Amino acid sequence: MSIMMASKKSTLVNRPALGILPPENFPEKITESLLSVAPSGMTRVQTMACGSCSNENAYKAMFIWYRNKERGHNIPSDEDLSTCMINQAPGCPDLSILSFMGGFHGRTMGCLATTHSKSVHKLDVPSFDWPIAPFPRLQYPLEEFTKENAQEEARCLEEVEDLIVKWRQKGKPVAGIVIEPIQAEGGDNHASPDFFRSLRNIAHKHGCAFHVDEVQTGGGSTGKFWAHEHWGMDDPADIVSFSKKLLTGGYYHKDELQADKPYRIFNTWMGDPSKNLLLAEVLNVIRRENLLEEVMRSGKALLNGLYELQAQYPGILSRARGQGTFCAIDIRDDATRNSLLLKARDKGVLLGGCGDRSIRFRPALIFKEYHVHIFLNIFNDVLAQHK
Amino acid sequence: MSIMMASKKSTLVNRPALGILPPENFPEKITESLLSVAPSGMTRVQTMACGSCSNENAYKAMFIWYRNKERGHNIPSDEDLSTCMINQAPGCPDLSILSFMGGFHGRTMGCLATTHSKSVHKLDVPSFDWPIAPFPRLQYPLEEFTKENAQEEARCLEEVEDLIVKWRQKGKPVAGIVIEPIQAEGGDNHASPDFFRSLRNIAHKHGCAFHVDEVQTGGGSTGKFWAHEHWGMDDPADIVSFSKKLLTGGYYHKDELQADKPYRIFNTWMGDPSKNLLLAEVLNVIRRENLLEEVMRSGKALLNGLYELQAQYPGILSRARGQGTFCAIDIRDDATRNSLLLKARDKGVLLGGCGDRSIRFRPALIFKEYHVHIFLNIFNDVLAQHK
Repeated sequence: MSIMMASKKSTLVNRPALGILPPENFPEKITESLLSVAPSGMTRVQTMACGSCSNENAYKAMFIWYRNKERGHNIPSDEDLSTCMINQAPGCPDLSILSFMGGFHGRTMGCLATTHSKSVHKLDVPSFDWPIAPFPRLQYPLEEFTKENAQEEARCLEEVEDLIVKWRQKGKPVAGIVIEPIQAEGGDNHASPDFFRSLRNIAHKHGCAFHVDEVQTGGGSTGKFWAHEHWGMDDPADIVSFSKKLLTGGYYHKDELQADKPYRIFNTWMGDPSKNLLLAEVLNVIRRENLLEEVMRSGKALLNGLYELQAQYPGILSRARGQGTFCAIDIRDDATRNSLLLKARDKGVLLGGCGDRSIRFRPALIFKEYHVHIFLNIFNDVLAQHK
Repeated sequence: MSIMMASKKSTLVNRPALGILPPENFPEKITESLLSVAPSGMTRVQTMACGSCSNENAYKAMFIWYRNKERGHNIPSDEDLSTCMINQAPGCPDLSILSFMGGFHGRTMGCLATTHSKSVHKLDVPSFDWPIAPFPRLQYPLEEFTKENAQEEARCLEEVEDLIVKWRQKGKPVAGIVIEPIQAEGGDNHASPDFFRSLRNIAHKHGCAFHVDEVQTGGGSTGKFWAHEHWGMDDPADIVSFSKKLLTGGYYHKDELQADKPYRIFNTWMGDPSKNLLLAEVLNVIRRENLLEEVMRSGKALLNGLYELQAQYPGILSRARGQGTFCAIDIRDDATRNSLLLKARDKGVLLGGCGDRSIRFRPALIFKEYHVHIFLNIFNDVLAQHK
């Protein structure tokens, strides 16, 4: 067995405590995997074991950063140190994270306070009094509703600023804003690049960290490796979290979001190097096979196909939308949606629901144009039965 | 390559969404790994990716169970459904988890509200107003302080009942009590089996779920696979969480703690089957080599050695204590403790600190009696330099 194979085998069958005793080659492995796809302006990454832990720790990093900023230095008072042990302010401060109605950021208790997509996730679990802003509800087709949609986005941005002011007055300042580039679980809700650029500016203006949650959108299915690249910004975020397609959880962050002391952002495993190994191979394949270009091509074919079906079945389908192959379409009602999902499954196509009555398309990155046509034929058959 | 090897390889290089598409052999793999060491009275296990997620989801399971008990049925009202979406009661109810000063249950925001070992874990992170009871501070040697220690434990139990009543009156009922069989991170604080049996009864009496957090103590190092087995109870807990030595996170639970609907306890990965594969092999070795007996034997030698050193260096050492090889000893002061840790490390022995001034011993399960003597000689040398 070669040394390389032995090292890979060792990575697969050991589980190190990364925060204390990382494998010697860990920095190198991170450089060739996660750091090779770091978002613009970010040179640091913190790995975590899953999406929820990624967001929880990103929120903690924002709270720590915000409190040090409030203090003007990073030396906690004796009162900070004693009160935090019993869950009281000022040590455990009344800070908040602003999130959006329809957003999904995970199910652990910090994340869950920012998740507002379905009641089944939240029911019966205690939460925080944190501000929740409306996410734009765009009308489709976009080109017919330019003015209305711009007004809708302006309304949401105004509400964000109002909430930041209101929560500061309440004594629960907004330390960070968290948002998905496309609200996935909440129904594949899109907003314009302008919306996100303005939101990023609002965060700057009010001294809030800006956290882009790419757990669902990251990894290439929008046609770019990160969905926020579609906004065309050099400085898109302070924190970008990921999981799912990246095979390991974690978040990238700007230097200033680095916690000021060891053990503030920490747990036993802090991820799993065996998943970085898998990710490195996935990235090799994405590059070698130009999969992001493939996604652009097949995504265009998919969306055009959905537009045609929508014209053909106007009583069933509406609001076809998407970026890359990260597409969705709305169905007449919840019952019809669920019936379509089952019928497609019986024909060998696994589709998912999201929001109240959307179907979301989440093909793998190897989904090519000819797969699109196979799919559209099957979907057409399923729809024809429902007509 | 044999079919068995191919199946293992497939498990190591794939990462399934366990909640939706588990591998076909998953139930079988869980039966031969985690369920083969299920605590008394528990036939169900929920895997998770790390210790914090395990506790977070165990807390959620207790909240869901408690609210359904309060309702008398599991059908949420329209008000429950609408208020939970905006983080408000009754949908997101003001329930609490009772924890203990000195306890450690993880660093995500739900867990962190029950962690009270070191300020570095908690500082600057918003928290919940949940009750915190004192954990017994036993005096050593135990045989000299029988009466005092019994009184101390009675005092803590009384405080637990007071807090349960007080928080119910505050409108934040205690849905569950969480405790470690040995407070590890908080300083290796022990309590008697009587204390835990009484606490279990108090939980019963007040309708709170009883959650035993074995993330640190589980896996054999106390000489039993679960530390709570030392209490000698048929019905030790409603929930037992684990991680670390088990290589995967998760929690066992009684039937009634099973969430009543899919997706209430859920995330994308819900653990990682490749770690169950590793665990199954670890369990094989534990059984084949009778490692729990070895732990009992080497633990006894270790503790006796610590007693002797404590008699020899009374100005430096005190309160030697432990179960199996899960041992600890107190050092004169923080500075001396940290210096001893470094000097031992320079002689090739990796020790950890816990609490304010304790050293904790956490050898692997293959630590045998002759390793004890090697260690005691080195530790004696280190101490002699400090005398």
